[in-house]
Amino acid sequence: MDGSALRYDTISFLSDFGTADEFVGVVHSVIRSIAPAVTVVDVSHGIPKFDTRAGGLALARAANYLCPGVVVAVVDPGVGTQRRPVAIEVGDGMSVLVGPDNGVLAPAVGMVGGATRAVEIRNPDVCLPRAGGSTFDGRDVFAPAAAHLCLGVPMTDLGPEIDPAGLMPGVLPISRFEPGIDGDELVCEVLWVDQFGNCQLNVDPMEMLAFGGEVIVSINGDDRIGLPVDAYDQIPTGRVGLVVDSSGLLSLAVARSSAADELELGAGIEVRLRPLPVSDRPNGVVTPVQLGNRPDDRQGDLA
Amino acid sequence: MDGSALRYDTISFLSDFGTADEFVGVVHSVIRSIAPAVTVVDVSHGIPKFDTRAGGLALARAANYLCPGVVVAVVDPGVGTQRRPVAIEVGDGMSVLVGPDNGVLAPAVGMVGGATRAVEIRNPDVCLPRAGGSTFDGRDVFAPAAAHLCLGVPMTDLGPEIDPAGLMPGVLPISRFEPGIDGDELVCEVLWVDQFGNCQLNVDPMEMLAFGGEVIVSINGDDRIGLPVDAYDQIPTGRVGLVVDSSGLLSLAVARSSAADELELGAGIEVRLRPLPVSDRPNGVVTPVQLGNRPDDRQGDLA
Amino acid sequence: MDGSALRYDTISFLSDFGTADEFVGVVHSVIRSIAPAVTVVDVSHGIPKFDTRAGGLALARAANYLCPGVVVAVVDPGVGTQRRPVAIEVGDGMSVLVGPDNGVLAPAVGMVGGATRAVEIRNPDVCLPRAGGSTFDGRDVFAPAAAHLCLGVPMTDLGPEIDPAGLMPGVLPISRFEPGIDGDELVCEVLWVDQFGNCQLNVDPMEMLAFGGEVIVSINGDDRIGLPVDAYDQIPTGRVGLVVDSSGLLSLAVARSSAADELELGAGIEVRLRPLPVSDRPNGVVTPVQLGNRPDDRQGDLA
Repeated sequence: MDGSALRYDTISFLSDFGTADEFVGVVHSVIRSIAPAVTVVDVSHGIPKFDTRAGGLALARAANYLCPGVVVAVVDPGVGTQRRPVAIEVGDGMSVLVGPDNGVLAPAVGMVGGATRAVEIRNPDVCLPRAGGSTFDGRDVFAPAAAHLCLGVPMTDLGPEIDPAGLMPGVLPISRFEPGIDGDELVCEVLWVDQFGNCQLNVDPMEMLAFGGEVIVSINGDDRIGLPVDAYDQIPTGRVGLVVDSSGLLSLAVARSSAADELELGAGIEVRLRPLPVSDRPNGVVTPVQLGNRPDDRQGDLA
Repeated sequence: MDGSALRYDTISFLSDFGTADEFVGVVHSVIRSIAPAVTVVDVSHGIPKFDTRAGGLALARAANYLCPGVVVAVVDPGVGTQRRPVAIEVGDGMSVLVGPDNGVLAPAVGMVGGATRAVEIRNPDVCLPRAGGSTFDGRDVFAPAAAHLCLGVPMTDLGPEIDPAGLMPGVLPISRFEPGIDGDELVCEVLWVDQFGNCQLNVDPMEMLAFGGEVIVSINGDDRIGLPVDAYDQIPTGRVGLVVDSSGLLSLAVARSSAADELELGAGIEVRLRPLPVSDRPNGVVTPVQLGNRPDDRQGDLA
Repeated sequence: MDGSALRYDTISFLSDFGTADEFVGVVHSVIRSIAPAVTVVDVSHGIPKFDTRAGGLALARAANYLCPGVVVAVVDPGVGTQRRPVAIEVGDGMSVLVGPDNGVLAPAVGMVGGATRAVEIRNPDVCLPRAGGSTFDGRDVFAPAAAHLCLGVPMTDLGPEIDPAGLMPGVLPISRFEPGIDGDELVCEVLWVDQFGNCQLNVDPMEMLAFGGEVIVSINGDDRIGLPVDAYDQIPTGRVGLVVDSSGLLSLAVARSSAADELELGAGIEVRLRPLPVSDRPNGVVTPVQLGNRPDDRQGDLA
């Protein structure tokens, strides 16, 4: 069979399985055994273990670039419990997202316009017989269900329709303005630290327009000056850069090193942004700021 | 050429190469250069370096899920020495396993019914000319031999037939019952720690039936109560769970964390299991047991 | 469409993206969206972050094994700055290398005979519209440009031709002979430490012929005897082996462990080699040498 007879010819696959064990390879093998002409694209398998929020965010960041088809996302600490295995149709059948109903699919579903239909996967005919316990639904449920969808099995053959409104939502933090010492501060948090150490904030750069130019970045009471730049490599050594990243969100970065390490940031940590007072930027002169200042040695940071 | 002209259309590939270097990519490229219509499925390249036992176990766990075709397994500390490069046919030609004759293939061969034929790979026409030393037989011998098998080259063209009975066996530890303080104990060991930290034991859950309910898990003289559960997420915080894993073997696990870290376990470490005495479980009350107890503070664990 | 209508049917892809984030998966998805019949072969995504030299060397080591087609290499600390995105044709169109003009492509281009043509990628029609900042040219520029080349878009449609002589060269260290205490020494350096800890030197084994047999390996003033062997597993425990590696270069190795760890070596560190004086090898007896000697306890090493 070539790809032309398939309902979907691509399965995009994300998990927290890592690649040291054979889990990912077994899922690929199961898909290929059922639907040999389907191509599997690995989105990532390095999601932090059990972290459905991180998995959901990664899938959402990728969503607009994935091939139409089936998406399998397995970050599933509740495997074997009552959490439901689901298939969620988007775009009236353009794509179907398959995984546990624990929020990991929700941000991507929202990103591409919301669910048009959903089913709970219950039909044993689209699953593998279990060789052991119910600990590996990626292999036994999600991969074979996805492969069957590619072959053209109707979604309603997977199991009973469920109300998309009842699916577990993804809870994303919203940034907000709060009154601060020098006027309003934008209270946000780190959504994601990538492998380069860049720290993505839940901030649309448009929110920052009124701040104009440099910005005070306050982390755990420690203030640094953030310099808006267009590219990572424009950040002077020792400075904190504010970059619009490839998702269109504001990101903290440093020059050829890890902002997360330098600023002691991780996903979920609060960051506060406020405009640099005009008195602190006479003649466009920038006060040098050392990275790595800690609360006990930060006096003079913004002097 | 499309896939229909191939003798085998899938090569499943496992190694200890890791993915930081270009080794895996070069093997893929060599296969594709010789047999462009073949799909390569990466089983895992995160096998601990030089660990033929771990590689053999991973391949055996995956074996029943792999696509029929050629399997290449390269965990090969003896590369360049007298150890033989071999191709082992199983299922009368259903699949062929290719790799060094050092035990890494043996558990998978056994898992799928044993060898029906074997050859030593010696024919330079199915190998690449060496660009340097004999340090990368994955690239120079195993990948091209596997690709030629996919193209339909008969196995006997790879080299002389050898007696499958003379292949290096995989040595797997057998669990056993031994008399202990409170009756028979099941003496087993950790076969594998997966990336979630779950510790697979060489124990068929059927062996435990007579124990009934909770079990004392003794590690290096330190006792904890193991709670049989159906799913990882049913393990209460601070408890040790006994889960039938996806291979059908008994596994030690803890709630959303690493049992290997909590219990200081690794592959090859001995674990002893015995029934929890009835006197210790009146009214179904479970004595709380803290994880992370160390020999010097474990008094009272089972009081 | 099947592969036969393609100008190129393979994209070999190398980067420093790692695999924990979704970057690699997004690049695969972009390529597949534009040119679904193309196969992407991952050469490696574990290049040390920002290390264009290491990326260039990895690509050069792989170059002779890659499938003809398009090569995408993204190690790109200067993304978003004035560094040029380029496509470099080699072999009169046999292959095209796509990436930033920062030296990462240069060693591979040299390895396969040099550039026959080059263009700067400027045509927005072969790129994706940017969703955010200019921080992910792998997704927005290199992947779509490569996919368009596969579809048959002429290279000159990517942007204006540039002089290949003006491309950023890869700077590779050359080993040299210098007068030493016991005659000429070969002064070289570590090009690459692989994941097994083997340390590749910029030394063609032919240069060592005159040394004959064992060699003194001097690292930061600390001398050890290096034993020429044909295979890693011929290195006695506690000894340093000299192996001709799979690239045909001289490599320092130890038995089933990491030479880099034992010898405290990393890429770029200088190593000096000189013949073992004949007086030190009477009757072929080898003086045992412990690994891990440090400067303060190394007296007697070569006694």
